[in-house]
Amino acid sequence: MEIIRTIKDMQEFSRQARLDGKRIAVVPTMGYLHSGHTSLIDCARAEADLVIVTLFVNPTQFAPSEDLSTYPRDFERDCELCEEHGADVLFAPPSTEMYYPDQSVWIDEDKLSQKLCGASRPVFFRGVCTVVTKLFNITLPDFAVFGQKDAQQALIIKRLVRDLNFPVEIIIGPLVREENGMALSSRNRYLSKEERQNALSISQALHQVERDIVKFHIHNKEKIMTAISKQISAAGGEIDYVEIYDAKTLEDVSEKSNKILIACAATFGKARLIDNVVLDLSD
Amino acid sequence: MEIIRTIKDMQEFSRQARLDGKRIAVVPTMGYLHSGHTSLIDCARAEADLVIVTLFVNPTQFAPSEDLSTYPRDFERDCELCEEHGADVLFAPPSTEMYYPDQSVWIDEDKLSQKLCGASRPVFFRGVCTVVTKLFNITLPDFAVFGQKDAQQALIIKRLVRDLNFPVEIIIGPLVREENGMALSSRNRYLSKEERQNALSISQALHQVERDIVKFHIHNKEKIMTAISKQISAAGGEIDYVEIYDAKTLEDVSEKSNKILIACAATFGKARLIDNVVLDLSD
Repeated sequence: MEIIRTIKDMQEFSRQARLDGKRIAVVPTMGYLHSGHTSLIDCARAEADLVIVTLFVNPTQFAPSEDLSTYPRDFERDCELCEEHGADVLFAPPSTEMYYPDQSVWIDEDKLSQKLCGASRPVFFRGVCTVVTKLFNITLPDFAVFGQKDAQQALIIKRLVRDLNFPVEIIIGPLVREENGMALSSRNRYLSKEERQNALSISQALHQVERDIVKFHIHNKEKIMTAISKQISAAGGEIDYVEIYDAKTLEDVSEKSNKILIACAATFGKARLIDNVVLDLSD
Repeated sequence: MEIIRTIKDMQEFSRQARLDGKRIAVVPTMGYLHSGHTSLIDCARAEADLVIVTLFVNPTQFAPSEDLSTYPRDFERDCELCEEHGADVLFAPPSTEMYYPDQSVWIDEDKLSQKLCGASRPVFFRGVCTVVTKLFNITLPDFAVFGQKDAQQALIIKRLVRDLNFPVEIIIGPLVREENGMALSSRNRYLSKEERQNALSISQALHQVERDIVKFHIHNKEKIMTAISKQISAAGGEIDYVEIYDAKTLEDVSEKSNKILIACAATFGKARLIDNVVLDLSD
Protein backbone atom coordinates (compact mmCIF):
# COMPACT_ATOMS: atom_id res chain seq x y z
CA MET A 1 0.00 0.00 0.00
CA GLU A 2 1.30 3.42 -0.95
CA ILE A 3 1.03 6.34 1.49
CA ILE A 4 0.65 9.70 -0.26
CA ARG A 5 0.99 13.00 1.62
CA THR A 6 0.68 15.78 -0.97
CA ILE A 7 -2.16 16.91 -3.20
CA LYS A 8 0.12 17.12 -6.21
CA ASP A 9 1.32 13.53 -5.86
CA MET A 10 -2.20 12.21 -5.24
CA GLN A 11 -3.67 14.06 -8.24
CA GLU A 12 -0.82 12.88 -10.46
CA PHE A 13 -1.27 9.29 -9.29
CA SER A 14 -5.03 9.32 -9.93
CA ARG A 15 -4.67 11.10 -13.27
CA GLN A 16 -2.32 8.36 -14.46
CA ALA A 17 -4.59 5.61 -13.12
CA ARG A 18 -7.52 7.10 -15.05
CA LEU A 19 -5.42 7.26 -18.20
CA ASP A 20 -4.69 3.58 -17.66
CA GLY A 21 -8.44 2.97 -17.65
CA LYS A 22 -8.63 2.00 -13.98
CA ARG A 23 -11.89 2.28 -12.04
CA ILE A 24 -11.06 4.32 -8.93
CA ALA A 25 -12.90 4.22 -5.59
CA VAL A 26 -12.36 6.60 -2.71
CA VAL A 27 -13.34 6.02 0.92
CA PRO A 28 -13.06 9.32 2.82
CA THR A 29 -12.41 8.91 6.56
CA MET A 30 -11.17 10.89 9.56
CA GLY A 31 -9.13 7.89 10.68
CA TYR A 32 -9.25 5.89 13.92
CA LEU A 33 -10.79 3.22 11.79
CA HIS A 34 -13.24 0.59 13.00
CA SER A 35 -15.31 -2.13 11.33
CA GLY A 36 -17.72 0.50 10.03
CA HIS A 37 -14.90 2.01 7.99
CA THR A 38 -13.39 -1.28 6.92
CA SER A 39 -16.78 -2.47 5.66
CA LEU A 40 -16.74 0.58 3.36
CA ILE A 41 -13.22 -0.31 2.19
CA ASP A 42 -14.41 -3.87 1.49
CA CYS A 43 -17.32 -2.46 -0.48
CA ALA A 44 -14.93 -0.29 -2.54
CA ARG A 45 -12.51 -3.19 -3.05
CA ALA A 46 -15.28 -5.38 -4.48
CA GLU A 47 -16.02 -2.91 -7.32
CA ALA A 48 -12.84 -0.93 -8.05
CA ASP A 49 -9.46 -1.49 -9.68
CA LEU A 50 -7.87 1.06 -7.38
CA VAL A 51 -9.01 1.76 -3.81
CA ILE A 52 -7.94 5.04 -2.18
CA VAL A 53 -8.67 5.60 1.50
CA THR A 54 -8.33 9.20 2.65
CA LEU A 55 -7.45 9.99 6.25
CA PHE A 56 -7.91 13.62 7.21
CA VAL A 57 -9.39 15.07 10.40
CA ASN A 58 -11.00 18.02 8.66
CA PRO A 59 -10.72 21.12 10.86
CA THR A 60 -13.37 23.09 8.96
CA GLN A 61 -16.18 20.77 10.04
CA PHE A 62 -15.51 21.31 13.74
CA ALA A 63 -16.82 24.35 15.62
CA PRO A 64 -14.35 25.96 18.08
CA SER A 65 -16.21 24.33 21.00
CA GLU A 66 -15.95 20.84 19.49
CA ASP A 67 -13.43 18.02 19.79
CA LEU A 68 -10.97 18.71 16.95
CA SER A 69 -7.89 18.66 19.19
CA THR A 70 -8.89 15.50 21.07
CA TYR A 71 -10.33 13.55 18.13
CA PRO A 72 -8.78 10.08 18.48
CA ARG A 73 -5.89 9.18 16.17
CA ASP A 74 -3.86 6.01 15.59
CA PHE A 75 -2.04 6.27 12.30
CA GLU A 76 -0.20 2.95 12.50
CA ARG A 77 -3.28 0.94 13.26
CA ASP A 78 -5.18 2.77 10.48
CA CYS A 79 -2.42 1.81 8.04
CA GLU A 80 -2.61 -1.82 9.11
CA LEU A 81 -6.38 -1.95 8.72
CA CYS A 82 -6.28 -0.29 5.29
CA GLU A 83 -3.62 -2.75 4.15
CA GLU A 84 -5.52 -5.74 5.56
CA HIS A 85 -8.64 -4.70 3.70
CA GLY A 86 -6.84 -4.27 0.41
CA ALA A 87 -6.56 -0.49 0.01
CA ASP A 88 -4.00 0.47 -2.65
CA VAL A 89 -3.37 4.02 -1.46
CA LEU A 90 -3.75 5.86 1.83
CA PHE A 91 -3.95 9.61 1.19
CA ALA A 92 -3.05 11.27 4.50
CA PRO A 93 -2.23 14.95 3.97
CA PRO A 94 -1.21 17.30 6.77
CA SER A 95 -3.77 20.00 7.50
CA THR A 96 -1.47 22.72 6.07
CA GLU A 97 -1.55 20.86 2.76
CA MET A 98 -5.34 20.94 2.60
CA TYR A 99 -6.12 24.57 3.47
CA TYR A 100 -4.42 27.87 2.67
CA PRO A 101 -4.58 30.35 5.55
CA ASP A 102 -6.65 32.63 3.29
CA GLN A 103 -9.01 29.96 1.94
CA SER A 104 -12.07 31.90 0.80
CA VAL A 105 -14.16 29.44 -1.24
CA TRP A 106 -16.81 27.39 0.58
CA ILE A 107 -19.64 25.10 -0.43
CA ASP A 108 -23.00 25.26 1.30
CA GLU A 109 -26.01 23.04 1.08
CA ASP A 110 -28.88 25.18 2.25
CA LYS A 111 -31.93 22.86 2.55
CA LEU A 112 -31.15 19.33 3.77
CA SER A 113 -28.50 20.72 6.11
CA GLN A 114 -30.93 22.88 8.10
CA LYS A 115 -32.13 19.97 10.24
CA LEU A 116 -30.73 17.29 12.56
CA CYS A 117 -26.94 17.63 12.94
CA GLY A 118 -26.88 20.75 10.75
CA ALA A 119 -29.16 22.59 13.19
CA SER A 120 -26.89 22.03 16.18
CA ARG A 121 -23.58 22.11 14.26
CA PRO A 122 -23.94 25.13 11.96
CA VAL A 123 -20.48 24.93 10.30
CA PHE A 124 -20.48 21.15 10.00
CA PHE A 125 -21.94 20.56 6.54
CA ARG A 126 -20.14 23.54 4.99
CA GLY A 127 -16.93 21.87 6.17
CA VAL A 128 -18.04 18.46 4.94
CA CYS A 129 -19.17 19.68 1.49
CA THR A 130 -15.98 21.68 1.02
CA VAL A 131 -13.60 18.91 2.04
CA VAL A 132 -15.45 16.21 0.10
CA THR A 133 -15.28 18.39 -3.03
CA LYS A 134 -11.56 18.87 -2.46
CA LEU A 135 -11.05 15.12 -1.95
CA PHE A 136 -13.00 14.34 -5.14
CA ASN A 137 -10.84 16.79 -7.10
CA ILE A 138 -7.66 15.37 -5.59
CA THR A 139 -8.43 11.64 -5.91
CA LEU A 140 -10.54 11.78 -9.14
CA PRO A 141 -12.70 8.76 -8.25
CA ASP A 142 -15.31 6.96 -10.31
CA PHE A 143 -17.19 6.25 -7.12
CA ALA A 144 -17.03 7.12 -3.43
CA VAL A 145 -18.26 5.13 -0.46
CA PHE A 146 -19.80 6.72 2.62
CA GLY A 147 -21.57 5.15 5.60
CA GLN A 148 -25.27 5.14 6.49
CA LYS A 149 -24.25 5.91 10.09
CA ASP A 150 -24.08 9.56 8.95
CA ALA A 151 -27.50 9.40 7.30
CA GLN A 152 -27.88 13.15 6.80
CA GLN A 153 -24.34 13.48 5.45
CA ALA A 154 -25.08 10.69 2.94
CA LEU A 155 -28.10 12.60 1.62
CA ILE A 156 -26.20 15.89 1.46
CA ILE A 157 -23.27 14.37 -0.40
CA LYS A 158 -25.65 12.85 -2.94
CA ARG A 159 -27.18 16.32 -3.34
CA LEU A 160 -23.70 17.88 -3.70
CA VAL A 161 -22.89 15.47 -6.50
CA ARG A 162 -26.25 16.03 -8.20
CA ASP A 163 -26.21 19.84 -7.98
CA LEU A 164 -22.56 20.32 -8.98
CA ASN A 165 -22.53 17.47 -11.54
CA PHE A 166 -19.54 15.65 -10.09
CA PRO A 167 -18.74 12.65 -12.32
CA VAL A 168 -18.72 10.47 -9.21
CA GLU A 169 -21.16 7.76 -8.13
CA ILE A 170 -22.05 7.71 -4.42
CA ILE A 171 -22.44 4.37 -2.67
CA ILE A 172 -23.78 4.21 0.88
CA GLY A 173 -22.60 1.28 2.97
CA PRO A 174 -24.74 -0.05 5.85
CA LEU A 175 -24.37 1.09 9.44
CA VAL A 176 -22.27 -1.41 11.41
CA ARG A 177 -23.12 -2.26 15.04
CA GLU A 178 -21.44 -4.09 17.87
CA GLU A 179 -23.08 -7.34 18.90
CA ASN A 180 -24.90 -5.48 21.66
CA GLY A 181 -26.42 -3.14 19.07
CA MET A 182 -24.27 -0.05 19.61
CA ALA A 183 -23.39 1.83 16.43
CA LEU A 184 -19.64 1.86 15.79
CA SER A 185 -18.08 5.31 16.04
CA SER A 186 -14.56 6.64 16.55
CA ARG A 187 -16.07 8.78 19.31
CA ASN A 188 -17.12 5.68 21.33
CA ARG A 189 -13.50 5.89 22.47
CA TYR A 190 -14.46 8.83 24.72
CA LEU A 191 -16.90 6.70 26.77
CA SER A 192 -16.12 5.29 30.23
CA LYS A 193 -17.23 1.74 30.87
CA GLU A 194 -20.37 2.97 32.60
CA GLU A 195 -21.17 5.54 29.91
CA ARG A 196 -20.74 2.88 27.26
CA GLN A 197 -23.33 0.75 29.04
CA ASN A 198 -25.73 3.70 29.34
CA ALA A 199 -25.22 4.74 25.72
CA LEU A 200 -26.66 1.41 24.63
CA SER A 201 -30.01 3.07 25.35
CA ILE A 202 -29.71 4.89 22.00
CA SER A 203 -29.76 1.80 19.80
CA GLN A 204 -32.18 0.05 22.14
CA ALA A 205 -34.63 2.95 21.95
CA LEU A 206 -34.34 3.15 18.16
CA HIS A 207 -34.93 -0.55 17.75
CA GLN A 208 -37.86 -0.42 20.15
CA VAL A 209 -39.43 1.89 17.55
CA GLU A 210 -39.89 -0.90 15.07
CA ARG A 211 -42.33 -2.40 17.56
CA ASP A 212 -43.83 1.00 18.50
CA ILE A 213 -44.53 1.74 14.85
CA VAL A 214 -46.92 -1.18 14.85
CA LYS A 215 -48.42 -0.11 18.16
CA PHE A 216 -48.73 3.65 17.57
CA HIS A 217 -48.85 3.95 13.76
CA ILE A 218 -46.31 6.19 12.13
CA HIS A 219 -48.56 9.27 12.23
CA ASN A 220 -48.24 9.35 16.00
CA LYS A 221 -44.74 10.48 15.46
CA GLU A 222 -44.66 12.70 18.55
CA LYS A 223 -45.39 9.71 20.75
CA ILE A 224 -42.60 7.71 19.13
CA MET A 225 -40.11 10.57 19.45
CA THR A 226 -41.05 11.10 23.09
CA ALA A 227 -40.64 7.41 23.87
CA ILE A 228 -37.13 7.40 22.38
CA SER A 229 -36.11 10.59 24.19
CA LYS A 230 -37.38 9.31 27.52
CA GLN A 231 -35.48 6.06 27.24
CA ILE A 232 -32.18 7.82 26.39
CA SER A 233 -32.64 10.54 29.02
CA ALA A 234 -33.44 7.91 31.66
CA ALA A 235 -30.01 6.37 30.92
CA GLY A 236 -28.34 9.74 31.51
CA GLY A 237 -28.01 10.90 27.91
CA GLU A 238 -28.39 14.55 27.00
CA ILE A 239 -30.64 14.64 23.94
CA ASP A 240 -29.64 16.88 20.99
CA TYR A 241 -32.47 15.70 18.75
CA VAL A 242 -34.80 12.80 18.06
CA GLU A 243 -36.50 13.21 14.68
CA ILE A 244 -38.55 11.25 12.18
CA TYR A 245 -38.42 12.24 8.51
CA ASP A 246 -38.92 10.87 5.04
CA ALA A 247 -35.63 9.02 4.54
CA LYS A 248 -35.09 10.33 1.02
CA THR A 249 -36.08 13.99 1.31
CA LEU A 250 -35.75 14.79 5.03
CA GLU A 251 -39.24 16.31 4.69
CA ASP A 252 -42.02 15.41 7.09
CA VAL A 253 -43.34 11.90 6.60
CA SER A 254 -46.28 11.85 4.18
CA GLU A 255 -48.34 9.29 2.30
CA LYS A 256 -45.64 9.38 -0.37
CA SER A 257 -42.92 8.27 2.06
CA ASN A 258 -41.72 4.74 1.35
CA LYS A 259 -38.90 4.82 3.83
CA ILE A 260 -38.67 6.75 7.04
CA LEU A 261 -35.56 7.80 8.89
CA ILE A 262 -35.60 7.82 12.67
CA ALA A 263 -32.47 9.65 13.76
CA CYS A 264 -31.11 10.85 17.04
CA ALA A 265 -28.09 12.54 18.58
CA ALA A 266 -27.30 12.48 22.28
CA THR A 267 -24.31 13.15 24.48
CA PHE A 268 -22.97 10.75 27.08
CA GLY A 269 -20.00 12.16 28.97
CA LYS A 270 -17.68 13.74 26.37
CA ALA A 271 -19.13 11.79 23.44
CA ARG A 272 -21.78 13.23 21.16
CA LEU A 273 -23.19 10.10 19.52
CA ILE A 274 -25.52 9.74 16.54
CA ASP A 275 -27.52 6.76 15.42
CA ASN A 276 -30.42 6.04 13.10
CA VAL A 277 -32.70 3.36 11.72
CA VAL A 278 -34.54 3.36 8.41
CA LEU A 279 -37.95 1.68 8.26
CA ASP A 280 -39.30 0.49 4.97
CA LEU A 281 -43.05 1.19 5.01
CA SER A 282 -43.61 -0.53 1.68
CA ASP A 283 -42.85 -3.94 3.20
CA MET B 1 -18.38 20.78 -34.92
CA GLU B 2 -20.61 18.76 -32.64
CA ILE B 3 -23.44 20.42 -30.72
CA ILE B 4 -24.17 18.73 -27.39
CA ARG B 5 -27.28 19.56 -25.36
CA THR B 6 -27.28 17.25 -22.33
CA ILE B 7 -24.97 16.90 -19.36
CA LYS B 8 -24.86 13.14 -19.72
CA ASP B 9 -23.74 13.27 -23.36
CA MET B 10 -21.15 15.97 -22.66
CA GLN B 11 -19.68 14.13 -19.67
CA GLU B 12 -19.56 10.89 -21.63
CA PHE B 13 -17.86 12.62 -24.57
CA SER B 14 -15.21 14.23 -22.35
CA ARG B 15 -14.65 11.08 -20.33
CA GLN B 16 -13.90 9.17 -23.54
CA ALA B 17 -11.65 11.97 -24.84
CA ARG B 18 -9.63 11.87 -21.61
CA LEU B 19 -9.33 8.08 -21.85
CA ASP B 20 -7.96 8.66 -25.37
CA GLY B 21 -5.30 10.91 -23.81
CA LYS B 22 -6.62 14.12 -25.37
CA ARG B 23 -5.82 17.49 -23.81
CA ILE B 24 -9.17 19.23 -23.35
CA ALA B 25 -9.80 23.00 -23.21
CA VAL B 26 -13.05 24.65 -22.27
CA VAL B 27 -14.08 28.23 -23.06
CA PRO B 28 -17.17 29.12 -20.98
CA THR B 29 -19.37 31.82 -22.56
CA MET B 30 -22.88 33.24 -22.34
CA GLY B 31 -23.03 33.44 -26.14
CA TYR B 32 -23.58 36.44 -28.44
CA LEU B 33 -19.94 35.97 -29.25
CA HIS B 34 -17.57 38.74 -30.35
CA SER B 35 -13.82 38.97 -31.02
CA GLY B 36 -13.16 38.93 -27.28
CA HIS B 37 -14.65 35.44 -27.10
CA THR B 38 -13.11 34.19 -30.33
CA SER B 39 -9.66 35.29 -29.16
CA LEU B 40 -10.19 32.95 -26.18
CA ILE B 41 -11.22 30.12 -28.51
CA ASP B 42 -8.07 30.78 -30.58
CA CYS B 43 -6.01 30.63 -27.42
CA ALA B 44 -7.62 27.28 -26.46
CA ARG B 45 -7.16 25.93 -30.01
CA ALA B 46 -3.43 26.66 -29.93
CA GLU B 47 -2.85 24.43 -26.89
CA ALA B 48 -5.56 21.74 -26.83
CA ASP B 49 -6.44 18.57 -28.71
CA LEU B 50 -10.13 19.14 -28.07
CA VAL B 51 -11.76 22.57 -27.73
CA ILE B 52 -15.17 22.79 -26.04
CA VAL B 53 -17.04 26.10 -26.08
CA THR B 54 -19.92 26.30 -23.61
CA LEU B 55 -22.87 28.57 -24.30
CA PHE B 56 -25.17 29.09 -21.35
CA VAL B 57 -26.83 32.28 -20.14
CA ASN B 58 -26.57 31.36 -16.47
CA PRO B 59 -29.71 32.52 -14.63
CA THR B 60 -28.17 32.21 -11.16
CA GLN B 61 -25.68 35.02 -11.75
CA PHE B 62 -28.42 37.55 -12.55
CA ALA B 63 -30.38 39.38 -9.83
CA PRO B 64 -34.15 39.68 -10.45
CA SER B 65 -33.66 43.34 -11.45
CA GLU B 66 -31.02 42.51 -14.05
CA ASP B 67 -31.11 41.74 -17.77
CA LEU B 68 -31.47 37.93 -17.88
CA SER B 69 -34.56 37.99 -20.10
CA THR B 70 -33.16 40.55 -22.55
CA TYR B 71 -29.57 39.28 -22.65
CA PRO B 72 -28.72 39.21 -26.38
CA ARG B 73 -28.75 35.82 -28.12
CA ASP B 74 -27.86 34.68 -31.65
CA PHE B 75 -27.34 30.94 -31.65
CA GLU B 76 -26.72 30.54 -35.37
CA ARG B 77 -24.06 33.21 -35.52
CA ASP B 78 -22.44 31.79 -32.36
CA CYS B 79 -22.27 28.36 -34.04
CA GLU B 80 -20.66 29.88 -37.13
CA LEU B 81 -18.05 31.73 -35.09
CA CYS B 82 -17.20 28.66 -33.00
CA GLU B 83 -16.82 26.59 -36.15
CA GLU B 84 -14.70 29.26 -37.87
CA HIS B 85 -12.35 29.38 -34.91
CA GLY B 86 -11.95 25.62 -34.78
CA ALA B 87 -14.04 24.60 -31.77
CA ASP B 88 -14.74 20.84 -31.74
CA VAL B 89 -17.79 20.91 -29.51
CA LEU B 90 -20.39 23.50 -28.60
CA PHE B 91 -22.06 22.56 -25.31
CA ALA B 92 -25.35 24.47 -25.24
CA PRO B 93 -27.68 23.03 -22.59
CA PRO B 94 -31.17 24.35 -21.89
CA SER B 95 -31.55 26.01 -18.51
CA THR B 96 -33.74 23.13 -17.23
CA GLU B 97 -30.82 20.80 -17.90
CA MET B 98 -28.45 22.82 -15.76
CA TYR B 99 -30.51 23.42 -12.59
CA TYR B 100 -33.02 21.32 -10.67
CA PRO B 101 -35.90 23.36 -9.25
CA ASP B 102 -34.69 22.39 -5.76
CA GLN B 103 -30.98 23.05 -6.31
CA SER B 104 -29.58 23.58 -2.82
CA VAL B 105 -25.79 23.50 -3.20
CA TRP B 106 -23.97 26.76 -3.84
CA ILE B 107 -20.38 27.92 -3.92
CA ASP B 108 -19.33 31.21 -2.38
CA GLU B 109 -16.06 33.08 -2.50
CA ASP B 110 -16.15 35.37 0.52
CA LYS B 111 -13.13 37.67 0.24
CA LEU B 112 -12.25 38.74 -3.32
CA SER B 113 -15.94 38.91 -4.19
CA GLN B 114 -16.76 41.58 -1.60
CA LYS B 115 -15.52 44.42 -3.81
CA LEU B 116 -16.08 45.90 -7.28
CA CYS B 117 -18.82 43.99 -9.15
CA GLY B 118 -19.47 41.73 -6.14
CA ALA B 119 -20.44 44.71 -3.99
CA SER B 120 -23.13 45.91 -6.39
CA ARG B 121 -24.18 42.47 -7.67
CA PRO B 122 -24.44 40.35 -4.50
CA VAL B 123 -25.57 37.08 -6.15
CA PHE B 124 -23.23 37.41 -9.12
CA PHE B 125 -20.12 35.54 -7.99
CA ARG B 126 -22.09 32.82 -6.20
CA GLY B 127 -23.76 32.17 -9.56
CA VAL B 128 -20.45 32.32 -11.42
CA CYS B 129 -18.58 30.01 -9.01
CA THR B 130 -21.44 27.51 -9.01
CA VAL B 131 -21.89 27.39 -12.78
CA VAL B 132 -18.14 27.27 -13.50
CA THR B 133 -17.81 24.32 -11.10
CA LYS B 134 -20.69 22.58 -12.86
CA LEU B 135 -19.14 23.26 -16.28
CA PHE B 136 -15.76 21.92 -15.11
CA ASN B 137 -17.42 18.74 -13.84
CA ILE B 138 -19.39 18.35 -17.05
CA THR B 139 -16.61 19.07 -19.58
CA LEU B 140 -13.65 17.66 -17.56
CA PRO B 141 -11.07 20.05 -19.04
CA ASP B 142 -7.30 20.15 -18.59
CA PHE B 143 -7.47 23.91 -18.89
CA ALA B 144 -10.08 26.66 -19.13
CA VAL B 145 -9.78 30.06 -20.79
CA PHE B 146 -11.42 33.20 -19.39
CA GLY B 147 -11.04 36.85 -20.40
CA GLN B 148 -9.23 39.66 -18.61
CA LYS B 149 -12.24 41.88 -19.38
CA ASP B 150 -13.81 40.33 -16.27
CA ALA B 151 -10.72 40.95 -14.15
CA GLN B 152 -12.36 40.23 -10.81
CA GLN B 153 -14.00 37.07 -12.15
CA ALA B 154 -10.61 35.88 -13.40
CA LEU B 155 -9.11 36.25 -9.92
CA ILE B 156 -12.08 34.56 -8.25
CA ILE B 157 -12.00 31.60 -10.62
CA LYS B 158 -8.29 31.14 -9.96
CA ARG B 159 -9.13 31.18 -6.25
CA LEU B 160 -11.97 28.66 -6.79
CA VAL B 161 -9.56 26.30 -8.51
CA ARG B 162 -6.89 26.77 -5.84
CA ASP B 163 -9.22 26.37 -2.84
CA LEU B 164 -11.21 23.40 -4.18
CA ASN B 165 -8.20 21.75 -5.91
CA PHE B 166 -9.79 21.47 -9.33
CA PRO B 167 -7.37 19.65 -11.66
CA VAL B 168 -7.82 22.47 -14.17
CA GLU B 169 -5.36 25.14 -15.28
CA ILE B 170 -6.78 28.64 -15.72
CA ILE B 171 -5.59 30.77 -18.61
CA ILE B 172 -6.60 34.43 -18.84
CA GLY B 173 -6.78 35.88 -22.35
CA PRO B 174 -6.25 39.62 -22.94
CA LEU B 175 -9.07 42.15 -23.06
CA VAL B 176 -10.02 42.90 -26.67
CA ARG B 177 -10.97 46.44 -27.74
CA GLU B 178 -12.51 48.05 -30.79
CA GLU B 179 -10.19 50.30 -32.77
CA ASN B 180 -11.63 53.29 -30.92
CA GLY B 181 -10.60 51.72 -27.61
CA MET B 182 -13.99 50.47 -26.42
CA ALA B 183 -13.89 47.11 -24.62
CA LEU B 184 -15.87 44.45 -26.49
CA SER B 185 -18.95 43.27 -24.61
CA SER B 186 -22.14 41.48 -25.57
CA ARG B 187 -23.93 44.24 -23.67
CA ASN B 188 -22.61 46.93 -26.06
CA ARG B 189 -25.56 45.73 -28.12
CA TYR B 190 -27.89 47.68 -25.77
CA LEU B 191 -26.27 51.05 -26.64
CA SER B 192 -27.83 53.59 -28.99
CA LYS B 193 -25.47 55.30 -31.43
CA GLU B 194 -25.16 58.30 -29.13
CA GLU B 195 -24.69 56.21 -25.99
CA ARG B 196 -22.00 54.19 -27.75
CA GLN B 197 -20.14 57.43 -28.47
CA ASN B 198 -20.51 58.61 -24.87
CA ALA B 199 -19.46 55.23 -23.45
CA LEU B 200 -16.08 55.68 -25.11
CA SER B 201 -15.35 57.92 -22.14
CA ILE B 202 -14.75 54.77 -20.05
CA SER B 203 -11.77 53.49 -21.99
CA GLN B 204 -10.54 57.01 -22.64
CA ALA B 205 -10.58 57.82 -18.93
CA LEU B 206 -8.83 54.56 -18.03
CA HIS B 207 -6.11 55.13 -20.60
CA GLN B 208 -5.69 58.72 -19.49
CA VAL B 209 -4.63 57.21 -16.15
CA GLU B 210 -1.41 55.87 -17.58
CA ARG B 211 -0.40 59.49 -18.03
CA ASP B 212 -1.91 60.60 -14.69
CA ILE B 213 0.07 57.96 -12.87
CA VAL B 214 3.22 59.77 -13.91
CA LYS B 215 1.73 63.14 -13.02
CA PHE B 216 0.08 62.26 -9.68
CA HIS B 217 2.04 59.21 -8.51
CA ILE B 218 0.05 56.10 -7.67
CA HIS B 219 -0.34 56.99 -3.99
CA ASN B 220 -2.61 59.85 -4.98
CA LYS B 221 -5.14 57.25 -5.85
CA GLU B 222 -8.13 59.36 -4.80
CA LYS B 223 -7.16 62.02 -7.36
CA ILE B 224 -6.86 59.41 -10.09
CA MET B 225 -10.20 57.81 -9.22
CA THR B 226 -11.90 61.20 -9.13
CA ALA B 227 -10.46 62.15 -12.53
CA ILE B 228 -11.81 58.93 -14.07
CA SER B 229 -15.24 59.34 -12.46
CA LYS B 230 -15.54 62.95 -13.59
CA GLN B 231 -14.71 62.12 -17.19
CA ILE B 232 -17.28 59.29 -17.35
CA SER B 233 -19.97 61.26 -15.52
CA ALA B 234 -19.42 64.25 -17.82
CA ALA B 235 -20.24 61.95 -20.76
CA GLY B 236 -23.54 60.94 -19.09
CA GLY B 237 -22.44 57.67 -17.50
CA GLU B 238 -23.78 56.62 -14.12
CA ILE B 239 -20.81 55.39 -12.10
CA ASP B 240 -21.10 52.13 -10.18
CA TYR B 241 -17.45 52.10 -9.06
CA VAL B 242 -14.00 53.30 -9.98
CA GLU B 243 -11.36 51.49 -7.93
CA ILE B 244 -7.62 50.92 -7.80
CA TYR B 245 -6.27 47.74 -6.22
CA ASP B 246 -3.31 45.44 -6.22
CA ALA B 247 -4.00 43.43 -9.41
CA LYS B 248 -3.19 40.09 -7.81
CA THR B 249 -4.81 40.33 -4.38
CA LEU B 250 -7.50 43.03 -4.79
CA GLU B 251 -6.05 44.53 -1.60
CA ASP B 252 -5.10 48.20 -1.37
CA VAL B 253 -2.02 49.09 -3.37
CA SER B 254 1.13 48.80 -1.25
CA GLU B 255 4.89 48.83 -1.76
CA LYS B 256 4.62 45.13 -2.54
CA SER B 257 2.26 45.71 -5.47
CA ASN B 258 3.92 44.97 -8.79
CA LYS B 259 0.80 45.35 -10.86
CA ILE B 260 -2.19 47.52 -10.16
CA LEU B 261 -5.71 47.08 -11.44
CA ILE B 262 -7.74 50.15 -12.29
CA ALA B 263 -11.30 48.98 -12.78
CA CYS B 264 -14.60 50.67 -13.32
CA ALA B 265 -18.28 49.94 -13.94
CA ALA B 266 -20.73 52.48 -15.28
CA THR B 267 -24.15 52.45 -16.88
CA PHE B 268 -25.01 54.15 -20.15
CA GLY B 269 -28.68 53.78 -21.05
CA LYS B 270 -29.59 50.13 -20.45
CA ALA B 271 -26.01 48.87 -20.54
CA ARG B 272 -23.95 48.31 -17.41
CA LEU B 273 -20.40 48.26 -18.78
CA ILE B 274 -17.16 47.23 -17.11
CA ASP B 275 -13.60 47.92 -18.18
CA ASN B 276 -10.14 47.81 -16.64
CA VAL B 277 -6.47 48.40 -17.25
CA VAL B 278 -3.53 46.77 -15.47
CA LEU B 279 -0.41 48.86 -14.96
CA ASP B 280 2.91 47.16 -14.40
CA LEU B 281 4.79 49.24 -11.82
CA SER B 282 7.90 47.12 -12.12
CA ASP B 283 8.57 48.42 -15.65
